Amino acid sequence: MKGFAMLKLNEVGWIEKERPACGPKDAIVRPLAVSPCTSDVHTVWEGALGDRNNLILGHEAVGEVVEVGNLVKDFSPGDKVIIPAITPDWEAVESQMGLSQHSGGMLCGWKFSNIKDGVFAEFFHVNEADGNMAHLPPNVSVEEAVMLSDMVPTGFHGAQNAQVAYGETVAVIGIGPVGLMAVAGSNLRGAARIFAVGSRLVCQEAAKFYGATDLVNYKEGDITRQIQEANKKKPVDKVIIAGGDLEAFEQALKIIRPGGIISNVNYLGSGDYIKISRLDWGLGMGHIKIVGGLMPGGRKNMEYLSNLLAWRKLDVSRLLTHRFKGMENIEKGLLLMKDKPRDLIKPVVTF
Amino acid sequence: MKGFAMLKLNEVGWIEKERPACGPKDAIVRPLAVSPCTSDVHTVWEGALGDRNNLILGHEAVGEVVEVGNLVKDFSPGDKVIIPAITPDWEAVESQMGLSQHSGGMLCGWKFSNIKDGVFAEFFHVNEADGNMAHLPPNVSVEEAVMLSDMVPTGFHGAQNAQVAYGETVAVIGIGPVGLMAVAGSNLRGAARIFAVGSRLVCQEAAKFYGATDLVNYKEGDITRQIQEANKKKPVDKVIIAGGDLEAFEQALKIIRPGGIISNVNYLGSGDYIKISRLDWGLGMGHIKIVGGLMPGGRKNMEYLSNLLAWRKLDVSRLLTHRFKGMENIEKGLLLMKDKPRDLIKPVVTF
Amino acid sequence: MKGFAMLKLNEVGWIEKERPACGPKDAIVRPLAVSPCTSDVHTVWEGALGDRNNLILGHEAVGEVVEVGNLVKDFSPGDKVIIPAITPDWEAVESQMGLSQHSGGMLCGWKFSNIKDGVFAEFFHVNEADGNMAHLPPNVSVEEAVMLSDMVPTGFHGAQNAQVAYGETVAVIGIGPVGLMAVAGSNLRGAARIFAVGSRLVCQEAAKFYGATDLVNYKEGDITRQIQEANKKKPVDKVIIAGGDLEAFEQALKIIRPGGIISNVNYLGSGDYIKISRLDWGLGMGHIKIVGGLMPGGRKNMEYLSNLLAWRKLDVSRLLTHRFKGMENIEKGLLLMKDKPRDLIKPVVTF
Amino acid sequence: MKGFAMLKLNEVGWIEKERPACGPKDAIVRPLAVSPCTSDVHTVWEGALGDRNNLILGHEAVGEVVEVGNLVKDFSPGDKVIIPAITPDWEAVESQMGLSQHSGGMLCGWKFSNIKDGVFAEFFHVNEADGNMAHLPPNVSVEEAVMLSDMVPTGFHGAQNAQVAYGETVAVIGIGPVGLMAVAGSNLRGAARIFAVGSRLVCQEAAKFYGATDLVNYKEGDITRQIQEANKKKPVDKVIIAGGDLEAFEQALKIIRPGGIISNVNYLGSGDYIKISRLDWGLGMGHIKIVGGLMPGGRKNMEYLSNLLAWRKLDVSRLLTHRFKGMENIEKGLLLMKDKPRDLIKPVVTF
Repeated sequence: MKGFAMLKLNEVGWIEKERPACGPKDAIVRPLAVSPCTSDVHTVWEGALGDRNNLILGHEAVGEVVEVGNLVKDFSPGDKVIIPAITPDWEAVESQMGLSQHSGGMLCGWKFSNIKDGVFAEFFHVNEADGNMAHLPPNVSVEEAVMLSDMVPTGFHGAQNAQVAYGETVAVIGIGPVGLMAVAGSNLRGAARIFAVGSRLVCQEAAKFYGATDLVNYKEGDITRQIQEANKKKPVDKVIIAGGDLEAFEQALKIIRPGGIISNVNYLGSGDYIKISRLDWGLGMGHIKIVGGLMPGGRKNMEYLSNLLAWRKLDVSRLLTHRFKGMENIEKGLLLMKDKPRDLIKPVVTF
Repeated sequence: MKGFAMLKLNEVGWIEKERPACGPKDAIVRPLAVSPCTSDVHTVWEGALGDRNNLILGHEAVGEVVEVGNLVKDFSPGDKVIIPAITPDWEAVESQMGLSQHSGGMLCGWKFSNIKDGVFAEFFHVNEADGNMAHLPPNVSVEEAVMLSDMVPTGFHGAQNAQVAYGETVAVIGIGPVGLMAVAGSNLRGAARIFAVGSRLVCQEAAKFYGATDLVNYKEGDITRQIQEANKKKPVDKVIIAGGDLEAFEQALKIIRPGGIISNVNYLGSGDYIKISRLDWGLGMGHIKIVGGLMPGGRKNMEYLSNLLAWRKLDVSRLLTHRFKGMENIEKGLLLMKDKPRDLIKPVVTF
Repeated sequence: MKGFAMLKLNEVGWIEKERPACGPKDAIVRPLAVSPCTSDVHTVWEGALGDRNNLILGHEAVGEVVEVGNLVKDFSPGDKVIIPAITPDWEAVESQMGLSQHSGGMLCGWKFSNIKDGVFAEFFHVNEADGNMAHLPPNVSVEEAVMLSDMVPTGFHGAQNAQVAYGETVAVIGIGPVGLMAVAGSNLRGAARIFAVGSRLVCQEAAKFYGATDLVNYKEGDITRQIQEANKKKPVDKVIIAGGDLEAFEQALKIIRPGGIISNVNYLGSGDYIKISRLDWGLGMGHIKIVGGLMPGGRKNMEYLSNLLAWRKLDVSRLLTHRFKGMENIEKGLLLMKDKPRDLIKPVVTF
Repeated sequence: MKGFAMLKLNEVGWIEKERPACGPKDAIVRPLAVSPCTSDVHTVWEGALGDRNNLILGHEAVGEVVEVGNLVKDFSPGDKVIIPAITPDWEAVESQMGLSQHSGGMLCGWKFSNIKDGVFAEFFHVNEADGNMAHLPPNVSVEEAVMLSDMVPTGFHGAQNAQVAYGETVAVIGIGPVGLMAVAGSNLRGAARIFAVGSRLVCQEAAKFYGATDLVNYKEGDITRQIQEANKKKPVDKVIIAGGDLEAFEQALKIIRPGGIISNVNYLGSGDYIKISRLDWGLGMGHIKIVGGLMPGGRKNMEYLSNLLAWRKLDVSRLLTHRFKGMENIEKGLLLMKDKPRDLIKPVVTF
């Protein structure tokens, strides 16, 4: 089969591979829609995962089941399914602890385009299919559903970990597609005021659509000063970090209240240390929590989130700025994520 | 001063009383908008609190401060304020435990029209003013703000206690104004599918407006069967009880999943026992939680909730079906709540 | 192989069965120690699960692995293992929700002597072995470890669900072996004062050993009055129900504070309804939570609890009042649990 | 009245001051036992709070009430009371949010020897007496009770914030009196294995007494290596930081599991930044929480903790290595805390 792969550092291209084999609990899926992710860019051009050779890229996909193992109970060939970027080992002790993202070790619930071939191929393999796929609701399109693989659950996880509550003021640093979903996720947990920090117009407009009340452009000066001024010197309740570099933590600490939560969902690709100002952190006694976590994977979370699309409580269409038809356009989509033109939020490729 | 009071069981009328005295931490407030509540009906015509003589009614008010004690720091005469129905003693040990509703004893955070005169008067008294009043945001009308005294926090507390989460299916039993706010509160915590159980058209339409996806009319047959059919035999995640009688708990248990939460915010005015079916409760091992609680009072909760109005995340105007001008119309409003005409959700009286 | 079975209602005896087959993720285990449980008594002589024919009994066992499926990674023949009474399907969506006890449906994580043959046999079958067995720590005896299958996790789950915290006052109703572990579990979560309700001397002495400060004998009068008097009319913070009948809930409500938790771990074997007094429950607004749940199963919980034995933080030896050697004594042990002689807490049979 | 004060940076001595005035909700208390704290040392000789002139030191006291304001309900002159180091403003909005430590601003619940005169005087002032004092249980000595002012609640808060649970492995860095109470607090929440990091023999022996299973001496090499070796390369579940410098956070990250919690209760007196290794923190996605907070103040927490002493669930006597009689010995006690002789854990001075 054909797959679009990282050939080596800084080099991508199409390769031929064997179609993956299907174990007794697994499924083989043919993609119907995929979406390239900034993580793929980190992997290829920044070497975030180290060198990899001929690794098929991609971890966001909706597809059609073509084969299932003999122990799979709830899925059959022909079923249309959403596959989350994170596909944990559910029997692992970490999963029993509510940490399925780290089943088998830190971040090891993340398999596609990391520790096995990804979804940019004619076929891909899903481990523990009954636990890691969700049926596509009939009234949800494949283009929209593919946003459930990574963008929605990652952004929403930021809001969950921040424990956003009714009437709170939240700052979301970074409003690429994940940050926009952190805005939407904060809004859907009842935040009243949402500061969205980003510079590109297309993202700012989407942020407004998803519930942001204030737009903050880092190109127009220090964001902490801008937020403090707009908020009349009052601190914010929560900060979600969905972009930027390690400095975002220092900024977050400057604007947050005692007892607040700084919730990171940004893949921190470079730098040695996050620096926590001793004074801003209340000499260690300010009850400001610093948390960060990989999105939860698996079927049940997918089902809950797909309900939001099925019942029209969340409209992800505003993320889909670039739509392509045909597998051959995957490279185009990936390069868009790499180059981030002004009008881009997220590309999707349907087959 | 004049006040509209429960004279004795089944009898209401205007009385003259001394204007209340202002202690060092207290405030005296002149109402700008008040709203009669079903609780007042329970009190007068059902004797829910036992007999009371010449007790001024009412616990939902927005007003103007006319006097503050010498220890009050954050409020001055002339300030427009929202006063929650529940005004706890904040130094009580129960408040230190996060149970300010029960400061001084079970339900003793509820003072207005219960253990002291209420707000249907020319003036009323607020204990611990700095802790129990919130400034009215400039862009919120007094009619809307008065919904924050009881309707919004009570309905939202139902959704909070139910721990409604992204994508869940919630049933709200009872869609009077509190139930409608439970619908809105569930929606604002990310529920996907919301069953709203009620019969009056005006309430059903408002339920749709606030996020209900399915309307269930108990006059059209057993609600558990209706919900199960619509939900394809799957149980719901959470049930919020905001109306009906004690039987609602039995119904809730029939439709809820293991691990679900039944969250009551209905003032249970009559009956001896709530009956929990041993089998439906999983022989005591089904992890179905049964919870119920009085709305949180105090200033901070008011501030958070008023943020939702100020930032247009919640529109309470759909509750306000009947608007009166002039204190003398309080009786008219109260009788509406007693008689519940078909087009009523909630009356408001401005002064 | 031989197994000790429920032949039909009210009748037990030895039968011959095929040794169970080992699926790819499963293990076959030879018991080293087993313990009969009151649940077995319910099953046989009270028909709590309905009629069953030739079902091998028992769900508390420590054993030696004799065979593992080809997908099992962490266990090999010869390994000594603890097997929890509850062995969930870890890929089920309920497990992904933190409700593995109900994987596949309400209570369906409970398999042994319920939906498949139990452990009172020469060999028994463990599903998803990597997720449902724990290695026996070298310094823990098999007699002690078998208390980890059900008694310790069930009693401790009562204290967990009650969210027992530093300095609280807890009442434990029922001090058979599960209730005693609820006492120990409350003590190990920092309870200060623990009322232990039971009548037999051997249990009362063990309750003292496990941290009870006050013994309450229901044969000496109404337990709510006794507790209130001893506690100087103050309510208790939490109540754990580990025995008694449905009436225990009514008693619990009479002694608990607003915001308290009534946590049931008693298998409620008979009766139609639990009755919650409307008044004692604060008219539905008292924030008293009523919860109940089956113990968590699986490997990780076993590992955590076995750590307590390995590091001598919990001494379960006081539970083991009757020790037998030889499989043939299983019947004797079971009849002890049925007849509950005055000196019994828990029997154990080693092979 | 006489008081032992910080005269200026690096200088302490006895001064004369007016006896403090008693507001309507306040109390004036005569100390019966006080204990100097390392914080006092930081304040005087390290200038941690900046320069202060003639500020009476001390924030750990048990005393006798000599005067109460006219609004105080639960205390009278002659009552023996425990006073927590932290005495919040309970009506402040922060207290309503469960953040009473920060009532009025970050750390502003801490008043004694910080923003008002402390307890090393003939008399001291307690704000909001009903909310900030607890009756001394009759069977608890004043020497022991004074450990409840700061040492017990601070150490226990570390274990609470770490959410220590049954069977977990916890590392406590720093085993001065606070660290020892973090050990005891972890033990009282059911930790199985507790690594106690410290070098002095008297502290190590006390750590064993309070439940430590492993002693780690930083003078014998890198503590992360020592812990990893003892724990067979497995990470620990939680780390409580109760001593050491900012480097402790880097060490904690090296030994903790995904999903673990690093809980600081150490007053971080110097240094600019806590450094969080990007890699050890799982690239921001490891679900490792970093939290830190000032102990909770107020009456109810005191009551819960004093229950532990009254019911003999906690024995603080092992902390009291140096006992003095007579107010004039306060200086001696303070200098002990400054010089930390090898046999010191904590001095107490009774009057």
